[in-house]
Amino acid sequence: MTVKVQTVCIIGTGLIGGSLALALKQSGFCSRVVGAGRTEATLKKAIELGVIDHYETDFSLAVKDADIVVVAVPLSAMKNVFEQIAPGLSTTAIVTDAGSAKQTVINDAESVFAANANRFVPGHPISGTEKSGVTAAFVELYENRKVILTPTDNTDANALKLVTEMWQATGAEVESMSAQHHDMVLAGTSHLPHILAFGLVDCLNNLKEVDEVFRFAAGGFRDFTRIASSDPVMWRDICLSNREDILDMIKKYQDELQMINNALQDSNGDDLIEIFERAKKARDLFNNQL
Amino acid sequence: MTVKVQTVCIIGTGLIGGSLALALKQSGFCSRVVGAGRTEATLKKAIELGVIDHYETDFSLAVKDADIVVVAVPLSAMKNVFEQIAPGLSTTAIVTDAGSAKQTVINDAESVFAANANRFVPGHPISGTEKSGVTAAFVELYENRKVILTPTDNTDANALKLVTEMWQATGAEVESMSAQHHDMVLAGTSHLPHILAFGLVDCLNNLKEVDEVFRFAAGGFRDFTRIASSDPVMWRDICLSNREDILDMIKKYQDELQMINNALQDSNGDDLIEIFERAKKARDLFNNQL
Repeated sequence: MTVKVQTVCIIGTGLIGGSLALALKQSGFCSRVVGAGRTEATLKKAIELGVIDHYETDFSLAVKDADIVVVAVPLSAMKNVFEQIAPGLSTTAIVTDAGSAKQTVINDAESVFAANANRFVPGHPISGTEKSGVTAAFVELYENRKVILTPTDNTDANALKLVTEMWQATGAEVESMSAQHHDMVLAGTSHLPHILAFGLVDCLNNLKEVDEVFRFAAGGFRDFTRIASSDPVMWRDICLSNREDILDMIKKYQDELQMINNALQDSNGDDLIEIFERAKKARDLFNNQL
Repeated sequence: MTVKVQTVCIIGTGLIGGSLALALKQSGFCSRVVGAGRTEATLKKAIELGVIDHYETDFSLAVKDADIVVVAVPLSAMKNVFEQIAPGLSTTAIVTDAGSAKQTVINDAESVFAANANRFVPGHPISGTEKSGVTAAFVELYENRKVILTPTDNTDANALKLVTEMWQATGAEVESMSAQHHDMVLAGTSHLPHILAFGLVDCLNNLKEVDEVFRFAAGGFRDFTRIASSDPVMWRDICLSNREDILDMIKKYQDELQMINNALQDSNGDDLIEIFERAKKARDLFNNQL
């Protein structure tokens, strides 16, 4: 592809930021990727791995020549990072993020960038693994995955277009929706499952037979709990950032579990099979869509 | 290996029975595998796939020459199958099963086989996939997987030894424990996770935004819910057969989920991170044991 922009600056060169850097370099979307972060050792590692071309630990310096700045840090750090980059941004720079909840990031961006918030494009790549850090980054992470952008009424159309093209360059399929809708959908499809998996492993870990429970776990358990290896800080931030929608989903799930509990309490096999059949049908359908 | 027995009869040639047949034939543990089941088309398919050597639809005829009879049918069908095979068993035949809950199967066997129940060896291969049926069977299913045998005080030592050798011939690692302990451990490691996965998919399926929730699901969700594609009849039977232990585990899980809910309700990030970190540590440890 033809080079779209000169410099992309990525704040936070972990799994998400690092994989994006690799994909942008490989696709030729930009000529240069500048990395920034708090920990110099990580940035040196990112240079060593060929993930970024240059690094800065001072965020306002890092963004100086950037056409696009991607903020890929935990949600709780977003506002602080926005404050640090704001003084260094050029008048034409576009800022985007990779946070898993969108309304809180939009609030942070609007409060920091004020009149310039129209050049902020809220975004969320729906991918990742249970691993984290720059050493887990890989160039194919976004291939055929979805990226959701949640522009506001004020978002500049050209900024939205360029960020869309950036993600498309990584092989991702880009979609748009409101932040409110995003946060509700993701609470169900991602946030609740992570909470359930963390909860299951913690619950089993509290049993006195914990060693045996894990020793006799089979493939189903391994798959089911893989996401419980995810980064606790990141997930605390997601929970707090999308608190209302997640609390709604937990409530719905508690009702569902109580319904299964009641069927079992009553030894009601018909009810159990009805629930399990509905679930299997929905899951098989989902599988066929992949 | 040297041939240990002439004939193994497998009642129920689905994923579990069919994969066992394939592994026993390949290892040379027996000279001949006879399959039996209710549906003649399935048995013909099993012959066609080379899974079994011969079939019968009359269970008492099927077990006539069998040195070992493996009953691999849903838990709710166990007692009825025991009743059907009992008249046909030779005086030296050994019977074993592959049920996911053990105390109810022992009760069924003792009530049907009475004085001959000492030649019944309760067993449970800890493997399987979310698929079912003979077409899903494959020879490596048990390789390096665990098989738990739950002998009672009356179980004949030679019978236990032969069933142990049979499973070892498939490449499995065989362990012994009490049925009571088995049922408690499996309630945590397998039965609860399946219920949670069925429950999650059913819960999301009830949302009005169901299409979008599934459309934006990523790899974590796919892994987490794979077991919700499991056979509903089999899981109804497991729930009803291991009802008490599963109800205990559901209660423990409900308390855990309520704890997470309360932390989130209070926006208590410290509590959330503590739970998530404990879970991640336990899950990472489990991963390292594989």
